[in-house]
Amino acid sequence: MKVVLLSGGGGGARFARGLQAALSPGELTVVGNVGDDLEILGLHVSPDLDSLLYALAGLIDDERGWGRADETWNALATAAAWGGERWFRLGDRDLGLHLVRTHRLRDGEPLSAITEDFCKRAGIAARILPATDDRLRTSVSTPAGPFTFQEWFVGRGHADEVDGVAYEGAGEARPASGVLEELDRADALLLAPSNPFLSVGPILAVEGIRAAIERRRARCIAMSPLVGGKAVTGPLDRMLSRMTGGTTPRHVAELYAGLIDALVIDEADAPAEAPVELVVTRTRMSGPESERRLAQVALEAACA
Amino acid sequence: MKVVLLSGGGGGARFARGLQAALSPGELTVVGNVGDDLEILGLHVSPDLDSLLYALAGLIDDERGWGRADETWNALATAAAWGGERWFRLGDRDLGLHLVRTHRLRDGEPLSAITEDFCKRAGIAARILPATDDRLRTSVSTPAGPFTFQEWFVGRGHADEVDGVAYEGAGEARPASGVLEELDRADALLLAPSNPFLSVGPILAVEGIRAAIERRRARCIAMSPLVGGKAVTGPLDRMLSRMTGGTTPRHVAELYAGLIDALVIDEADAPAEAPVELVVTRTRMSGPESERRLAQVALEAACA
Repeated sequence: MKVVLLSGGGGGARFARGLQAALSPGELTVVGNVGDDLEILGLHVSPDLDSLLYALAGLIDDERGWGRADETWNALATAAAWGGERWFRLGDRDLGLHLVRTHRLRDGEPLSAITEDFCKRAGIAARILPATDDRLRTSVSTPAGPFTFQEWFVGRGHADEVDGVAYEGAGEARPASGVLEELDRADALLLAPSNPFLSVGPILAVEGIRAAIERRRARCIAMSPLVGGKAVTGPLDRMLSRMTGGTTPRHVAELYAGLIDALVIDEADAPAEAPVELVVTRTRMSGPESERRLAQVALEAACA
Repeated sequence: MKVVLLSGGGGGARFARGLQAALSPGELTVVGNVGDDLEILGLHVSPDLDSLLYALAGLIDDERGWGRADETWNALATAAAWGGERWFRLGDRDLGLHLVRTHRLRDGEPLSAITEDFCKRAGIAARILPATDDRLRTSVSTPAGPFTFQEWFVGRGHADEVDGVAYEGAGEARPASGVLEELDRADALLLAPSNPFLSVGPILAVEGIRAAIERRRARCIAMSPLVGGKAVTGPLDRMLSRMTGGTTPRHVAELYAGLIDALVIDEADAPAEAPVELVVTRTRMSGPESERRLAQVALEAACA
């Protein structure tokens, strides 16, 4: 069974890990968000691709939810002492990957080829692809003005309310090599329990990807990231409420209008109504068992 | 008293530390070798400038003789696991400096300005300047063929005999901003106990610097890096023997013909004859006390 997941980091990466455990090697492709990508001290950082890679490779720090376990923090602390930027945290082990990736990007290799090579080196059974090899950057408009995603999310601790989200470069961005082929031959399409505006939205903003999902022959299932109308982490509930007027399953489903056949929601959000079929289950992931169980629910919904 | 020292890393950096201790703040300028500079994973590394900076700032690892004390090695170890180069060692704290420098160089700032800023941030009382802001790279010709300095020194463990040394780019390299002014107004010129071919040679290969020393009004004193005809560390004795026929003070002095007024040699190398005045002392540096004492001997020889 060929499965394609569109995902950010965080909860999406945990869900991807559940899918990898539930599927056979070679069955899973994850199309990762690159709207959060940024340059720190000249290094190209792809936070969501890295969370996916680290989660699937068993390298992620599960407590922190990003970066690597058993991490040290000396390089950027020292860089700050020499006058370097200090607003974005990167661990030393994590930095090793950014150094290699940045060097290869400067040599002209596409992000997708580098990411696939990293998956092979990590020995993971899934394929991770960036949505696009072209430049695509998420920005938010807030009462305090517009910000790039990371300026707002990390730099300002996502304290500002969000009035709108834009995806710079999305108009010209082409799906990365392999993405459309995987989408077109998939037996199941899944949208991860990631922020629809900030994590799944930038992927769907790539016109070729959206069109491939619109013309799907497989069912497409979205995983709601809300539990009882609240975000497990992050600002989604505030964003959804401010931009769409509520945080019910209907408000989530409407963000994916025309793209999904069912929405998996938490027991805490039922009973509910929505423009698509609803699948009710416990959606909190607290370890390998619950990740895998949620993945099974999603796969069953896709095969229904 | 204004003192200018031409120096590599290693013994040169220890000697620079002795001079800094012997002089008043603002009196010492060190012109550092950049012939060893290299790019690792896209990062610009200046090993000799960094050894000087770390030694003068009290950050160097004295046992290892390079890099920072209390170091960790996670970033490059991880980079190697992702396919990055693994032949050159850089610690995590050290990496912080390379990240900041590389980022600023890419933004168009000259190496000399960045180095001066680092000196200020480290709060050191000396000025460190690269010999040149232009590209200058040392290479060696060996029976196994030509190699860049670091390929031969680190990559091949300087096992090959050396038939000749070349300084690529030296013909076009201009002295970095401030170097000629410091040389012309110096009350004492010193050549560090560094390898004359590999550390002091690349500095003197910059025509403007050599000319400034030739036209000197201050005395110029060279520190022999040999003890009893042997190098304290590194391949100098083998190089000197093969390329000039011996390892006596005369062989060292002749490398600096026309540039020095005296050569400070170790007791183990006396009695000896040379085309310049010889100053005999104990030259081994085993700690702050002996570094400072050797610096005093050099300064007295310069004022003779």
